[in-house]
Amino acid sequence: MFKKLERQKVFRDPLYGYIEVNYELISKLIDAREVQRLRRIRQLSGVSMVFQTAEHSRFTHSLGSYQMANLVLEKVSGAKENLSEYEQILLLVSALLHDIGHGPYSHAFEEILDTPHEEMTARIIEASTTDVNRILKEYGVNPSDVASIIRHNSKYKVVEKLVSSQLDVDRMDYLARDAYFTGATYGTIDRNRLLRSMIVLKDDVLVRASGVHSVESYLMSRYHMYFQVYYHPVTRAYELLLEGIYKRIKDLTEANIKVDANVTNFVRVIKDNSLIEEYVSLDDAYVNGFVTQLTSSSDEILSTLAKAFLNRKLFKYLDVNEDIDISQFKKNKYYFNESSVSAVAYLANKGAVDSIKLLTETGEVVKLEDYSPIIKSLAESSYKKVKRIYYFEA
Amino acid sequence: MFKKLERQKVFRDPLYGYIEVNYELISKLIDAREVQRLRRIRQLSGVSMVFQTAEHSRFTHSLGSYQMANLVLEKVSGAKENLSEYEQILLLVSALLHDIGHGPYSHAFEEILDTPHEEMTARIIEASTTDVNRILKEYGVNPSDVASIIRHNSKYKVVEKLVSSQLDVDRMDYLARDAYFTGATYGTIDRNRLLRSMIVLKDDVLVRASGVHSVESYLMSRYHMYFQVYYHPVTRAYELLLEGIYKRIKDLTEANIKVDANVTNFVRVIKDNSLIEEYVSLDDAYVNGFVTQLTSSSDEILSTLAKAFLNRKLFKYLDVNEDIDISQFKKNKYYFNESSVSAVAYLANKGAVDSIKLLTETGEVVKLEDYSPIIKSLAESSYKKVKRIYYFEA
Amino acid sequence: MFKKLERQKVFRDPLYGYIEVNYELISKLIDAREVQRLRRIRQLSGVSMVFQTAEHSRFTHSLGSYQMANLVLEKVSGAKENLSEYEQILLLVSALLHDIGHGPYSHAFEEILDTPHEEMTARIIEASTTDVNRILKEYGVNPSDVASIIRHNSKYKVVEKLVSSQLDVDRMDYLARDAYFTGATYGTIDRNRLLRSMIVLKDDVLVRASGVHSVESYLMSRYHMYFQVYYHPVTRAYELLLEGIYKRIKDLTEANIKVDANVTNFVRVIKDNSLIEEYVSLDDAYVNGFVTQLTSSSDEILSTLAKAFLNRKLFKYLDVNEDIDISQFKKNKYYFNESSVSAVAYLANKGAVDSIKLLTETGEVVKLEDYSPIIKSLAESSYKKVKRIYYFEA
Amino acid sequence: MFKKLERQKVFRDPLYGYIEVNYELISKLIDAREVQRLRRIRQLSGVSMVFQTAEHSRFTHSLGSYQMANLVLEKVSGAKENLSEYEQILLLVSALLHDIGHGPYSHAFEEILDTPHEEMTARIIEASTTDVNRILKEYGVNPSDVASIIRHNSKYKVVEKLVSSQLDVDRMDYLARDAYFTGATYGTIDRNRLLRSMIVLKDDVLVRASGVHSVESYLMSRYHMYFQVYYHPVTRAYELLLEGIYKRIKDLTEANIKVDANVTNFVRVIKDNSLIEEYVSLDDAYVNGFVTQLTSSSDEILSTLAKAFLNRKLFKYLDVNEDIDISQFKKNKYYFNESSVSAVAYLANKGAVDSIKLLTETGEVVKLEDYSPIIKSLAESSYKKVKRIYYFEA
Repeated sequence: MFKKLERQKVFRDPLYGYIEVNYELISKLIDAREVQRLRRIRQLSGVSMVFQTAEHSRFTHSLGSYQMANLVLEKVSGAKENLSEYEQILLLVSALLHDIGHGPYSHAFEEILDTPHEEMTARIIEASTTDVNRILKEYGVNPSDVASIIRHNSKYKVVEKLVSSQLDVDRMDYLARDAYFTGATYGTIDRNRLLRSMIVLKDDVLVRASGVHSVESYLMSRYHMYFQVYYHPVTRAYELLLEGIYKRIKDLTEANIKVDANVTNFVRVIKDNSLIEEYVSLDDAYVNGFVTQLTSSSDEILSTLAKAFLNRKLFKYLDVNEDIDISQFKKNKYYFNESSVSAVAYLANKGAVDSIKLLTETGEVVKLEDYSPIIKSLAESSYKKVKRIYYFEA
Repeated sequence: MFKKLERQKVFRDPLYGYIEVNYELISKLIDAREVQRLRRIRQLSGVSMVFQTAEHSRFTHSLGSYQMANLVLEKVSGAKENLSEYEQILLLVSALLHDIGHGPYSHAFEEILDTPHEEMTARIIEASTTDVNRILKEYGVNPSDVASIIRHNSKYKVVEKLVSSQLDVDRMDYLARDAYFTGATYGTIDRNRLLRSMIVLKDDVLVRASGVHSVESYLMSRYHMYFQVYYHPVTRAYELLLEGIYKRIKDLTEANIKVDANVTNFVRVIKDNSLIEEYVSLDDAYVNGFVTQLTSSSDEILSTLAKAFLNRKLFKYLDVNEDIDISQFKKNKYYFNESSVSAVAYLANKGAVDSIKLLTETGEVVKLEDYSPIIKSLAESSYKKVKRIYYFEA
Repeated sequence: MFKKLERQKVFRDPLYGYIEVNYELISKLIDAREVQRLRRIRQLSGVSMVFQTAEHSRFTHSLGSYQMANLVLEKVSGAKENLSEYEQILLLVSALLHDIGHGPYSHAFEEILDTPHEEMTARIIEASTTDVNRILKEYGVNPSDVASIIRHNSKYKVVEKLVSSQLDVDRMDYLARDAYFTGATYGTIDRNRLLRSMIVLKDDVLVRASGVHSVESYLMSRYHMYFQVYYHPVTRAYELLLEGIYKRIKDLTEANIKVDANVTNFVRVIKDNSLIEEYVSLDDAYVNGFVTQLTSSSDEILSTLAKAFLNRKLFKYLDVNEDIDISQFKKNKYYFNESSVSAVAYLANKGAVDSIKLLTETGEVVKLEDYSPIIKSLAESSYKKVKRIYYFEA
Repeated sequence: MFKKLERQKVFRDPLYGYIEVNYELISKLIDAREVQRLRRIRQLSGVSMVFQTAEHSRFTHSLGSYQMANLVLEKVSGAKENLSEYEQILLLVSALLHDIGHGPYSHAFEEILDTPHEEMTARIIEASTTDVNRILKEYGVNPSDVASIIRHNSKYKVVEKLVSSQLDVDRMDYLARDAYFTGATYGTIDRNRLLRSMIVLKDDVLVRASGVHSVESYLMSRYHMYFQVYYHPVTRAYELLLEGIYKRIKDLTEANIKVDANVTNFVRVIKDNSLIEEYVSLDDAYVNGFVTQLTSSSDEILSTLAKAFLNRKLFKYLDVNEDIDISQFKKNKYYFNESSVSAVAYLANKGAVDSIKLLTETGEVVKLEDYSPIIKSLAESSYKKVKRIYYFEA
């Protein structure tokens, strides 16, 4: 039996009214240094360059994912029946901790680190020096179990699916949350209906076919959020400034040239990403701090990019076709980027990603794309890939 | 110059905050008997059997469509520039009046009347005895011009498109309104974004390609509202009771058997739908009135259906496949119905319905379905037609 | 043990997402004739003359009050612990049924009937001929217990307080609901916070002093809804037409003059309000029906008022001071009314109404007005009574 | 004539849908360094310790105030008629710039700086080195005129009232915005109604008496936001950590002891607050940066407070009465604070603050508190001052 708080603790939240904490373990984890650090890392990095109000932190999303896990246990039929208490705790804990591995300005950071944030999350959970590791053990949860869920090792398949799949507590919170904080109304999802449609079995998570419309609607919302918010070219044009700064710092330090700013821990981490203590010392404030210092760097590329970052002098961009000679833009590798964006509304059993499965009224289990012709066509169609170059004019 | 009110009149509305009336003509039309009658006809007939709060009237939707027309003039680029003042007035008036031809419990009523409500709207506008006809003439608007817009005669093409097409003030109001009053969140549409994306030209209405996502999202909302709300089988199962009553009254009176309830005007109208005065005397209250009386009718079918209607003893329904012998259900024609439902999210130039057209950044005009692969696949796919029988067990 | 449904039934609702029905008894009661009748009686009678979208029925409010009772049991600390299962059922049932005694256009009807609707509710529950009486007995609930709660007989004090007091499930639903359906934003109440602040004891219902702000805010909302919505003079100016019609019918029938419309049950009821079967046959449709017939009544007063009612030719009104000679308006008693409106935001132990009581952090129980200076001054202050006359110009 | 943009620019915003920019001047000012800096200063400093989602910046509020000014010009009767184009521009500009003088963690900063942020705003506008100064002059706006509005010099009285009074664009945005981002529903204000009730005259701003309820409701919202959000003791308990750090840095530098962190500009500014360039280099990131460095400071007080700040080890607090001997808490001046909080819902002509004035239906101008007994009692009553001590246990 996991110890409950004497009186429930709550956090006010615009999406749920209240986020409710009943277990002492959860309360302690929320106060853990590695979770509190997420207050200082924005959920949507550069998106606020386009949607000015997108300033919310990964902390609020972590609490929100945890609350969604609460709601799954409370509202989804079969959830409490088919998950042991230990598995229920694993669900709550994994939902709360799943993002602690994110670095500052996550996308640019993953680029330079070359390690996905999920792996960093798992390492932080397993590292003996961290608060979360200590607290988990203190309350009888094996950190490796949580890490295994984050790493998708299939030890706790149902919990894994609820924490990370095409319909999970993570996405159900962030789509709604990012829509709320950006003001992008198409992200609205019908949480109540989705929760009523889902079913948790011993070994799988299904959706009742009668609720297919709520899943269709959810996938369309996701699709629109991706194209309208997450992949907006101006967001990328801003983050590329930071990518340039990160790369330049890396190159200079590899060439043993000292960078004239307080970048010690950053440099250590990109050299050796097993340095957990240094890793968790990095946050947006830290990066903003050294970028501010770099505006007066003696290295011209660093000072140029740092000033541009602070004054939002962004990369320009151009859709590419045959007629354009892109070599003219390529003079300086820190000032150039070439990328292509494509997204599908739904992944039908592609690689590691499983299809959403429906339970029909006659008791059959079918893949969503085989039941809904709309989703089938969404899965097959995709916007023509846009090949785009970004370039910076110093 | 059309006369303005000395002080703007407003109606409070949950969707728009305020509905604003500036012209004296509009103020008079709102007070017209034929518009006020819409207060007594529900927008969604039997839908409140499924969504209990769907009790709003066609009056509120008519005001809402009018306010959307206001917003089109205020927000859509090109609208004020490319429409003469007379055309602007036609737009406002047509939006306000487009639904005055609806009968009580519209679907069942159209079935028995065999005339679409748009035609009835046009006739009421043209009838010399009606308030709206008199008021229009008094303020210098030719009723035939309004009727021609309702009848899609292509005299005022742009106004017609704004009042009735796949993206018009009617739909933009009712999708949002019906979502609000049912609580069906998937009906939420991004009105601000749609209005900013639309462009009114001299002879056409286009959508900027940069706003394609808002149109995609709008069409998905429409699709879900159709399947989840408007075509819900329980709604149909309720309305069929009324269809049965209507048919039975018709058959009895054609056989010269007197119906023992106050149905005089109803019977006159279904015999001769040019009787405008009688037509506009019919409303939900009138029908509810005679249905209540019919509960003690000496005709057993009438009394049975009337009691069932008041006590919500609905038709049952069954999806049909080869194995089912439907003849057993067909004993009584008033107690049986066979129908099939199918809907596509978007009509790509089918018959009278035009595609939505986009204006690309390079200035080309393209059909939505040729630009958006998602919409293309939506237009092509459709839910497998559901053939369904409804039957009543007395 | 009260029997539960095999699968929970839900009603969609914009305020709560879903209204959840778990007990078979509740499901049966919702289907009862006397509850279904409330679908045909508007919650806010004539308010839709001012707030055009205020068209929701007493049925939706009854379900909403029931759902608030659900939430009280689920969220308020002490509720489940201090109420026996029978009392919990009494709470749910009383919340659902508390309004079944309302007549059509309630205010005007109470005026002519001279019996408060609560008493009519209690009688319907106790009448052996009604569905609700039969169902309650069938499931082991004593109808007299429910009636005693409605009549405030203090047998089940805590349940009574939760159903009807200055802070109860009735008000918490209708303030929010009426605000939602009128679009009057000042009716918004912080339901989550209120529920978290309340405490149910064995013999009383208190509010934690730490939640005093949510109660203050709730009382201000209530106050504003009263002045802005419920007591709006235009609403009264409309309902007076009906009061005139009701009075005239009464006077005519008392003088043995036959009224030329279908008013049989109406007349029976106002002669003898113990006629439950006749009473529950009355609804808005019934009244609208006879009013429509009365437009061609041979009695000039009836036909005048009936036409005025349908065409919204309302009473005029005038604030009265010494300078005005009101005798000129008094020629016809059906065309004249004199009334004064005053409201206080909060009743501090006036007559039968108890103060809201707070539980301070040190464990004391204090009256709200003794703790909150704001509420104290609200309770003492009141808008200067507005004496107003209403008159009708035929 | 002020130059308009060729195409309107918009910013997405959850409160207004879109924030609309029509003038080139406004567009340039938004891009100014001193306005962009507000992206890096949180609107509510430490409030996110209590309301975790309160992470929005002063930038979003500045845009919002500007948009409210837009709406005032568009919706308030008399606004366009009674303000010259220059005054309209002054209104828009002042609304946009009114907060640029805020320092990081504003409250703690004003404490150490001993200059109100309004004065800093005015100085930044007048300083010849700033972007905003240059842009204003370039577009024909005299910076002194804007500064005079910020300083309340009564040169442009109506504009001043609209920018800063008891009912102004600043408050109308921040109450709604802070409510949205904290999730505190009692901050909801009825913007549409307020704007419709206001009247701009040549020399004053009034509210129609018919709209008194919307002002009452607005003042209650303001009152509740103050007590529930802005003055929450936990917020103060967090900000005191920063106040301690600021004070300690000041004392050390005054004693010529070097602080081992990058605090150069901070120290310069608190010595000489006329150093505008240094002032605008300070933001939350800068402060967070040096606080992080101070966690390893050799000064024990600094390192203790810095660690506490990052790990949210807050001051404790205690309501004070006679029985408590507070001397025991006073050992260390950086670890102790004594303060009292009181707030009234409305200031009736106290000192520099004018009453809100109403225009009655008979054309009289009366003070709000003389018209509304509720407001009168609110103005007179106030929560008993809470004397509270805060102390830190190292």
